[in-house]
Amino acid sequence: MLSEFSLIDRFFARRATAPSPRHQDEAATPLGIGDDCALIAPPAGHQLAISTDMLVEGRHFFADVDPNALGHKALAVNLSDLAAMGAAPHAFTLALALPRADEAWLEAFSDGLFALAERYDCALVGGDTTSGPLNICITVFGDVPHGAALRRDAARPGDDIYVSGTLGDARAGLGAIRGEWRVPRGAGWQRALERPEPRVALGLALRGVAHAALDISDGLAGDLMHILKRSGVRAIVDADAVPCSDAVRALPDAARRQCTLAGGDDYELCFTAPAASRDALANIAMRVQVPLTRIGTIESSGAPGIAWRDASGALLSLTLQGFDHFHAD
Amino acid sequence: MLSEFSLIDRFFARRATAPSPRHQDEAATPLGIGDDCALIAPPAGHQLAISTDMLVEGRHFFADVDPNALGHKALAVNLSDLAAMGAAPHAFTLALALPRADEAWLEAFSDGLFALAERYDCALVGGDTTSGPLNICITVFGDVPHGAALRRDAARPGDDIYVSGTLGDARAGLGAIRGEWRVPRGAGWQRALERPEPRVALGLALRGVAHAALDISDGLAGDLMHILKRSGVRAIVDADAVPCSDAVRALPDAARRQCTLAGGDDYELCFTAPAASRDALANIAMRVQVPLTRIGTIESSGAPGIAWRDASGALLSLTLQGFDHFHAD
Repeated sequence: MLSEFSLIDRFFARRATAPSPRHQDEAATPLGIGDDCALIAPPAGHQLAISTDMLVEGRHFFADVDPNALGHKALAVNLSDLAAMGAAPHAFTLALALPRADEAWLEAFSDGLFALAERYDCALVGGDTTSGPLNICITVFGDVPHGAALRRDAARPGDDIYVSGTLGDARAGLGAIRGEWRVPRGAGWQRALERPEPRVALGLALRGVAHAALDISDGLAGDLMHILKRSGVRAIVDADAVPCSDAVRALPDAARRQCTLAGGDDYELCFTAPAASRDALANIAMRVQVPLTRIGTIESSGAPGIAWRDASGALLSLTLQGFDHFHAD
Repeated sequence: MLSEFSLIDRFFARRATAPSPRHQDEAATPLGIGDDCALIAPPAGHQLAISTDMLVEGRHFFADVDPNALGHKALAVNLSDLAAMGAAPHAFTLALALPRADEAWLEAFSDGLFALAERYDCALVGGDTTSGPLNICITVFGDVPHGAALRRDAARPGDDIYVSGTLGDARAGLGAIRGEWRVPRGAGWQRALERPEPRVALGLALRGVAHAALDISDGLAGDLMHILKRSGVRAIVDADAVPCSDAVRALPDAARRQCTLAGGDDYELCFTAPAASRDALANIAMRVQVPLTRIGTIESSGAPGIAWRDASGALLSLTLQGFDHFHAD
């Protein structure tokens, strides 16, 4: 049985790197794991973007999930929040409650975690471990120049509405596991569910181009409403233009729309941009190699809401509910 | 039944204040709850001190604990880490897993949390809530001038070793609950256990005066060892000089030493300072109204370790273990 301190040391502290200094100022030497606090500072002219996410067994992942994938996802969902803000990943803290110190589990979990962290040069700078029902809480820190953050309150009438990648794969996979419908094997849903890829490069490229942005974690319908409410605007969205994989497209209409419009766990970006930015966005999509799809338009100011249309332009009457952790999905 | 979003809004977002701007630069307007990330920046010439702590039912608190006290303690243990670093509290994030949305519990919890947060002008800037076994994870942010942080690796041979307040009350109270010994009612142990007071003003006053510092969360013996290991020095400590309340002093020697030297949950500061600072420290103790007690000396460099002595100067042979979340206490 490993003690708390040797466990932290073996699986986390040894693999943690000091955050990279971003100042000329020698006095601002950063400090990572091993003291009461980590010390970091954004570069001059930047702010620190901060987000925290808590993942709970049975709610965000199944008990038998591959721990390597879980390590990946726990950090990925946080990096996705940085991407949605246009912030560059810099560092993170990890708090972990574990029912027991299972070395094989910890090795796989930390491997998955650090593989993603190293890809984005994101240093583990502090944390906490305790015994308890499995719970993973990561807080992530990124850099964004003053005034450049992609905020939810910045949508303007006339803006196009875009989403990146495809939506609904994770929800389709969850439905397949639950027996709600059948999705072909190899349809990519397991990867979407277990190893979402944060759109970090896209988020950085959208600085100065997009107006409002967020990442789709609770379903497009509910998440887009956050932009509309904070910006005080309405939206028209072509429900059938929402991009999805072939496997999701093959589902019956109602199931497909449930997946693409209210699925959750997508971690794609939804953003608005003026029509004058269409060429710039086509170039960005090519450069960062992430498909971007225009799905609708921001309407005049007014009571926030979404008017859903189908491919023919006819109004749809949809009753969709975003993912809510205190209701059934 | 409250939905996740109305719950966040009602008990947390409405009471959250935007973090106070600390820049002249208008572009650096801070952003709190309601976007993908919070945006903050330390004042010019400062670093951000960051700490995270996770509290789990049955491990850090009992299921029937007063939720108001729990809200206080969840933030207090994090502010204590800032204090140990000499950092001024600025903001925090809260991630919360709840078995159910119990309004009375949430109201009391948030009351206790915000009462302490407001006392230290520490703004809630982001968070996450989910259903799951009760788990509270707070990440806290403070400001400290470049080079002024009280680090664990800064103890020097010849330094005096100090602790603030009294040690062992929380552990004595826990022992009373467990039936290990009897502690008189009204002895203050319940307050020590449930409502520790972070030594924020003391930590700020120690900048430029103390060398190394940390907060005592896992017991003096284990925590002091962190300073010794990171500084590469040894210590001589007078076990009987370690300050304790009358109730703890009345315990049998072995129980008293277990409480004061290895108790945990004290949240007092342990720090080292050169002998030339004794007058300055006496003045600081008066000014911040926190008793400071000199308990030992940092010895020459060498294999880190603590030589315990009793009041007569005789060497003690103590087998003490710091609090470890993967072993029995």
